[in-house]
Amino acid sequence: MSEPDKSKEDIPDDPAGKGIPNGGNAAKSQEDFDLASIYVSDAQYNRNIYFDTSPEAVKLYMRYNHWIPKVFLFFFILVDLSLAIFEKPAVFPVPTLYTMLVELLCLLVFSLRLVHYAKVIPRDKFWKDPKNICIIGILVLTVVDLVVYESLEAANWYAVRWSRVLRPLLLVNVTEGRQLRRAFRSIRNALPQIFYVFLLFMFSLLIFSLMALKLLSKRGLKTIDGAPYFTNYLEIVFDLYVLVTTANSPDVMMPAYNASFVFAIFFILYILINTYIFMSVFLAVVYNNYKKYLKEEVRQLVRAKRHKMVRAFAVLKEQRAEGGEPVVTQTNWNQIVKQVQPEISNAHRELLWSVSDNNNKGFIGKVAFVQLADLLNIEVITLKSRPHPLHSAFPAFYMSASSRLLCRLVQHRVFVIAYDLIILVNAVFIGLDEENPLIANSEWAFLALYLLEILLKLYVFEPRAFFSRHSFWNWFDTIIVISALIATIINSVMTSSQSYTSRQILDIVFILRVLRLIRVVDSIKRFRAIINTLIRIGPAILTFGQLIIVVYYIFAMVGMELFKGKIQFFEDVSVDPARAYCGNPLLKGTAFAQLNYCKNNFNNVVSSFILLLELTVVNQWHVLSSGFAAVTHVSARLFFIVFHIMVVIVIINIFVAFVLEAFFVEYSVDKGDLQTSLEKKIEELELTVAQEKLEDNLVNAMETIDSDQGTGQSASNKPALMFKIASKRYRTVDALLQRMFEADLDPEDFAENDDANGNFPNPAFSAV
Amino acid sequence: MSEPDKSKEDIPDDPAGKGIPNGGNAAKSQEDFDLASIYVSDAQYNRNIYFDTSPEAVKLYMRYNHWIPKVFLFFFILVDLSLAIFEKPAVFPVPTLYTMLVELLCLLVFSLRLVHYAKVIPRDKFWKDPKNICIIGILVLTVVDLVVYESLEAANWYAVRWSRVLRPLLLVNVTEGRQLRRAFRSIRNALPQIFYVFLLFMFSLLIFSLMALKLLSKRGLKTIDGAPYFTNYLEIVFDLYVLVTTANSPDVMMPAYNASFVFAIFFILYILINTYIFMSVFLAVVYNNYKKYLKEEVRQLVRAKRHKMVRAFAVLKEQRAEGGEPVVTQTNWNQIVKQVQPEISNAHRELLWSVSDNNNKGFIGKVAFVQLADLLNIEVITLKSRPHPLHSAFPAFYMSASSRLLCRLVQHRVFVIAYDLIILVNAVFIGLDEENPLIANSEWAFLALYLLEILLKLYVFEPRAFFSRHSFWNWFDTIIVISALIATIINSVMTSSQSYTSRQILDIVFILRVLRLIRVVDSIKRFRAIINTLIRIGPAILTFGQLIIVVYYIFAMVGMELFKGKIQFFEDVSVDPARAYCGNPLLKGTAFAQLNYCKNNFNNVVSSFILLLELTVVNQWHVLSSGFAAVTHVSARLFFIVFHIMVVIVIINIFVAFVLEAFFVEYSVDKGDLQTSLEKKIEELELTVAQEKLEDNLVNAMETIDSDQGTGQSASNKPALMFKIASKRYRTVDALLQRMFEADLDPEDFAENDDANGNFPNPAFSAV
Repeated sequence: MSEPDKSKEDIPDDPAGKGIPNGGNAAKSQEDFDLASIYVSDAQYNRNIYFDTSPEAVKLYMRYNHWIPKVFLFFFILVDLSLAIFEKPAVFPVPTLYTMLVELLCLLVFSLRLVHYAKVIPRDKFWKDPKNICIIGILVLTVVDLVVYESLEAANWYAVRWSRVLRPLLLVNVTEGRQLRRAFRSIRNALPQIFYVFLLFMFSLLIFSLMALKLLSKRGLKTIDGAPYFTNYLEIVFDLYVLVTTANSPDVMMPAYNASFVFAIFFILYILINTYIFMSVFLAVVYNNYKKYLKEEVRQLVRAKRHKMVRAFAVLKEQRAEGGEPVVTQTNWNQIVKQVQPEISNAHRELLWSVSDNNNKGFIGKVAFVQLADLLNIEVITLKSRPHPLHSAFPAFYMSASSRLLCRLVQHRVFVIAYDLIILVNAVFIGLDEENPLIANSEWAFLALYLLEILLKLYVFEPRAFFSRHSFWNWFDTIIVISALIATIINSVMTSSQSYTSRQILDIVFILRVLRLIRVVDSIKRFRAIINTLIRIGPAILTFGQLIIVVYYIFAMVGMELFKGKIQFFEDVSVDPARAYCGNPLLKGTAFAQLNYCKNNFNNVVSSFILLLELTVVNQWHVLSSGFAAVTHVSARLFFIVFHIMVVIVIINIFVAFVLEAFFVEYSVDKGDLQTSLEKKIEELELTVAQEKLEDNLVNAMETIDSDQGTGQSASNKPALMFKIASKRYRTVDALLQRMFEADLDPEDFAENDDANGNFPNPAFSAV
Repeated sequence: MSEPDKSKEDIPDDPAGKGIPNGGNAAKSQEDFDLASIYVSDAQYNRNIYFDTSPEAVKLYMRYNHWIPKVFLFFFILVDLSLAIFEKPAVFPVPTLYTMLVELLCLLVFSLRLVHYAKVIPRDKFWKDPKNICIIGILVLTVVDLVVYESLEAANWYAVRWSRVLRPLLLVNVTEGRQLRRAFRSIRNALPQIFYVFLLFMFSLLIFSLMALKLLSKRGLKTIDGAPYFTNYLEIVFDLYVLVTTANSPDVMMPAYNASFVFAIFFILYILINTYIFMSVFLAVVYNNYKKYLKEEVRQLVRAKRHKMVRAFAVLKEQRAEGGEPVVTQTNWNQIVKQVQPEISNAHRELLWSVSDNNNKGFIGKVAFVQLADLLNIEVITLKSRPHPLHSAFPAFYMSASSRLLCRLVQHRVFVIAYDLIILVNAVFIGLDEENPLIANSEWAFLALYLLEILLKLYVFEPRAFFSRHSFWNWFDTIIVISALIATIINSVMTSSQSYTSRQILDIVFILRVLRLIRVVDSIKRFRAIINTLIRIGPAILTFGQLIIVVYYIFAMVGMELFKGKIQFFEDVSVDPARAYCGNPLLKGTAFAQLNYCKNNFNNVVSSFILLLELTVVNQWHVLSSGFAAVTHVSARLFFIVFHIMVVIVIINIFVAFVLEAFFVEYSVDKGDLQTSLEKKIEELELTVAQEKLEDNLVNAMETIDSDQGTGQSASNKPALMFKIASKRYRTVDALLQRMFEADLDPEDFAENDDANGNFPNPAFSAV
C-alpha cells in the first residue's frame, strides 16, 4: 500500500513546482506537449497507466492509446470468445485445426499488445501488475492446453479444452477493461459481508429443513406424483432452498397444506423469514457495500485525475513574475487542447478558455488548469443558426403566406396530436387480421402518411438540424419508415410476382410496423423523462452486461463439459418415441421431459447461454436442475445452486443496487458544479439557446457543427452561433460514477496520495 | 395548508413566553401538571391530538390515553375482524344472529370511543378530521348493511355483506393507527410517480404483445397442451404480463424457442426490458418517493414534538430573575417526570436530570427541557450489583476454591464451545431416525445436559440478573428446555402407559427440540450482529404486517364474494371422481386441477389468506388466476392482476425500501446525539458498566431494577448501582424513524410551523 515509489525519479516533471528544466519560461518543445497531452488525456478518460516518460515511451504510449489497436484488440477478443460457436460441441462444426489456428492468431495479437504495453511502462511496474501476470498466465495456459488437447486427441484419449473458461478473463484483464474490473472489485468487496448473511441464511434453511423432516416425514404424505413427501433430509434442504427462490411455490407446500392448514403456517413463516427478510437483507448488504466501496474508489480515481493534471501543469507552466505563481499561457493551452482533442471546434475551445480564464488575463493558474479534464468531458453542442436551404433557393415562395401557415401548422401541437392519433389507429389496424385486403392495403396509406410527416418536417426544419447527432427520434422515425417502405415494397413485389410470401421479409415488415408505434412515447412528456433517465444510465448498465457475459461464458464452458449431449432436442415433429424423453431414457416421467424442456440443454454455446438466462430468471430452475441431475448425478444440482448464488444473489443484487444509486443521483443532482459554471459562462456570453426549444426536439433552423474550424471569433457573430450543454449525456461511464461522488471532494485539494500511484490495480481498501 | 388556526385561543399556554396567568412564579396546581404531563407524554409518543385544554377535557384526555381503553378498543377491532371466521362462508359456521349481535357490540364500543374522543378535542377540529368522518361512515354503513342484509335474507333474496371490506379501515382510522396511516400515506404519495412508470411499462407490454402476435400467431405453433400458441392478443398480453413476474418462464417461451432459437431473442429482450429494467425502476421510484416523503413527514413530526414540549415548558416555567430567561425548577421537573412515567426509578430520574441540568444549577431552560421527551424515550437499564443468594446463605461454601473454580469454568469460553458442540451432536441425533431406541433415549441425555447448563449458570450468575428483562437468550433457553422436558415426559408417559403416541404432543416435542438448536447463533458474534439488526428493525416491519393484513382482508372479502364455493377441496382420500377436478367440471384438464390446487380457494377466510399469500409469493399465480377464471369468467383475472399490482409492485417494494433504509441508518448512525450525551453523563458519573460484559449476556451479579423507589441518592452508593443504555432498542417505531432523519434538524430550532397544527391528518406536502 505505502511501498516506496521507486520509479518516481523517471518522471521529469514535479508537481510540487520546484525548479526543474522545463518548468522555466523556455518555449515548450513538441515532446513537452506530447507528454502534457498524454497526462490530460489520461485524466480525461481516467486511464491509470504509470507510463515511462522518456520521449520514445511517450510516443509508443500515444500509439498504444490510439483507437485502431484498441478496436483491433477487442475484435480479436470477440473472435476468441466466438470460437465456442465452432468448437465441439459446436453450433456450426468446423475441424479442430481451424479453430486452433484462429486461437493461436488471437494469442499472437494479445501477446503483441502486451509487448507494446511492456515497452510503455517501466519494467518493474509491468511485473508488479497482476493484470499482466494474469494475461501471461492465460496465454501460457491456453498454449499448454492446446498442445495437451491435440496430443490426447491424437492418441484418442478423452480430452477437455479446459482453458476455454479463461478466455472471458481477458476482457477483464486488458487495460481497457477498467469498468469491468471495478464491477468485479465491488463484488469481491461485498463478498465477506454477504458470506456471513449467507451462512446465517443457510443455518436458518437447515433448521427449517430439520423441522420439516421431523414434522412431515412420518405422516405418509405423497407428492402429486405419488412419491413420498419430505422424507429425505437433503431433498428437503434442496426443496426449501428452491422455495426461497419462490420457484416451487406453492407446489412444495400443497401436500402438507392438504393434510392440514396448520402446516401452511410453517411454510408461511419460512417464506417470511427466508424469502422476504433474508433476500432484502442480501440486497441491503450488497447495496451498502457497493455504495461504500464505490465512493472510496471514485474518490481515488478523482485524486489520480487531479494528480495527472498537476503533472501536465508542471510540464506546461511558466513563471510570469519572479516569485509569482506558475501559470499556463493561452497559446500553450490552445496547443494542448488541440492535441488532446483534435476534433474540437475553435468556438468550443474558446468557450472553454473563457470559462477557465474567468478574468481574461491570458493565462491560468493550477486550479483552473486542473479543471480542463472535466471541461473536456462536458459535451457542448455548438449550434449555428442557418437559414433553410429552400429559403435561400426560393425566398419568395418559402416566405409566402401559405408556406408560413404550413410551417406554423407543422410546428403546432395539433400536428403532433394528429399523428399520435394516426399511430393509434395504425396500432389497431396492425392488431387486426392482415389477410383482410382492406387492412393489407391500409398499410400503404399509413406508410404514405408517415412519409408525408417526415417530408413536412424537412420542409419546416433545416435538414442538417433535423438530422443532427442528438435528434434521436428523428433518426429513429426516418430509418424505421424508410426500411418499412423498402421491406413492404419487396414483400408486395414478391407476393404479386411469384405468389409466394417470404416469412423472413414479412417478419421484418411486422417488426418495423410495430416499432413505428414506439414513437408515441416521445410525445408524452412524462414518458420522455423516464426514458431519458433510462438512456442516461444505459452505458453504465452495459458494464453489467459485460460482467454477465463473463460469468455466463465461464458457466457455459463448464456446463458444456459436464452436460453436453446428455439431453437431445429433436427438430422434426415426426413421432420419434425418444422425443418424449429428450432422447435420454433417464428422463422418462420427469417434469423436465413432461414440460418439453429438451431444448434447454448444454449442447452448444447458444443454447447454454439461453439456458443460463432462464436460470437467471429463476422460475422452474429446480425442474431444469433436476433434469440435468437425473441424466448425470444428483450432485449436478450443485452447479445450478452455485450459479444461483453467484448470479441471482450477488450479481443481480449489485445490478439493482447500481440502478437504484444511479436513479437517486439522477433525481438529486441535476448538473455537476463544473457544468453549472460552464453554463453560467454560456449565459454570460449570451450564447444560450432557449432550453425548451431543444427539449422539444424542434431544433428550428439550427445546426450542429462538430469541427467548424473557420468560425474564428465566436463572440462577434453572436446570433449565428449558439452553445448548448448536452448535460444529460456522459461520454464515459466514469463520468457518471464520478459525478455521483464528486460533490464530497474539495476542489482545492491536490494532496498526492501515494497509495493510488501507478496503475493501482488493488485500491488500498481492498486489503480490508 | 395555512388555514388560520381558529382554535388556538382555546389554549391557555403561550409558547412565545408572554405574560400569561400560570407563566408566573406561582406554585403550579395539579391541573397545570396534568396539562404539562399530557404535552410531554404526547411529545414522547408522538401523539398529534389537538385536545381541548380545559381541565375537564384534560382529565378526559388522560383517561382516553390510558392503556386499558386502548387495549379494549384493539380487542374489539380484533373481534370485529375475526367475525369473518364465523360468517358465511365460515370456517366454523355460527348462526347469523350471533355474529350480528357481536358486530353490533363492536360498533357500540367503537362509537363510545369516538364519543370520548369528541369530548376531548374541540368540536370544529373533530368534524374537520377525515379520520373521524371515516369511522362514522364505517359505523353508519355497517349498520345499514346489517339491516339491508337481514331484510334481504328474510325475503330469501341474494344478499351480500359488502360492509365487511370496511372493517380493516377501522385499524387505519383509529387514533392509535398512526404508523399504519403513515405507511398508507407513503404509498399514496408514491402512487403518481409509480403510475407514469406503470403506464410506460404497460405501453411496452402492449407493443411487445403486438409484436408477438404478428410474429408468432401465423406459424401454427402449439403449446404443450396442443392448444394454439400466441393467437389471441389479450391472451398474449396476459401471458407476457405473467412473464414479467417470471411465473411462466420458460414455459411461455418454449414453443417459439423450439421452432427457432431466434425467437428466444425476442423473449430475452422482453425479460431484460420489462422484468429487470422496469422492475428495478419501480423499486427505485418507490424507494425515492418513500425517502423523500418520509423525511418530510418525520421532520414535521419532530417539529410537532418540540412544539408540544415548548407548550409544556410554558405551563411549568418560572421567572428566576427579572428579565431573565424562564426556567423549570427541579421540583416541578421531578413532579412532571413522575406523572408522565410513574414506573421510572428515582435513580434513573436523577440521571436524566443531571443530563438536563448539566451545570447543576437546580433549574433548566427551554432547550434542556425540550430534550425531556427524547430522554424519556431512551431506554436506560438500571443495574444494581447484588451478591448471589447462595453467597449470602452459604458464604463459606460458595467462596470455596472448588466453587470458584466451577464459576470460572462456566464463565470460560470453553464452556460455551462445549455446549455448542453438544448442540451440533444433538442436531445430528435429531436428524437420525428416532425409532432407533438408542437415539430415542439419547434425548433424555441431551435434556439433562441442557438442564445442567441452566442450573450451572444459575449457580454462577445472580438469578434475578440471569432472568432480567433484557436477557432474551436466557429466557429463550429456559422456556424451551423446560417445555421440552414437560412435553417429553408427557409423551413418554402416554407411550408407555397406553402404548399410544399423540401426534400433537410429538410434534411439539420435535419443534422444541429443533428450536433449541437456534441457540448456536448467539455464540457467533457475526451472526449476533445481523440478528440484532433484524430485531431492531422488527417493530417497524410489524407496521407493514398490519398494512398487509388490511389489504389482504379487503381482497379476501371481495374474493370470497366472487369465488366462494366455486372450487371444492375434498378432505377424504376416497376415490371421489369429483376430487380430480376440484368438484367443478369446468376445471377438467386445467393446470389448476392437475397440480391439485383445490385447497387454494376462497371458501373461507383462512384459505383466502393463504391463497393471497401464495399470490404475493407470485409463482404459479397465473395457474391460480386461470383456475378461478375457468370457473367464473375470464375477467376474473383482473382481480388477480390488481392484487399483483397493489401488493407485489407497490407494497412489497415499499417494504424492501423500508428494510434498505433502516439497514443503512443502522449501518451509518450508531447512536443518536442525545443518547451519546446521556452516555457521556453516565461515564462522568462513573456509573457505566463494562460494555462487553453485558454484550456477552454475562450479567454477572447484577440486576435490573425497574421501579426501585427506595434508592434515594444514587450517587452515594456508587458501586451498588449502575446504568446502561439499551441503545439498540427503540420503544416506538417513531423513534427509529425519527433517528433516521433527526440529524438534519437544528436542535435550537423552535419555529412553530402552523402547517402541522392539530392532528395534521394530511401533511402539507400530500397536496402536491
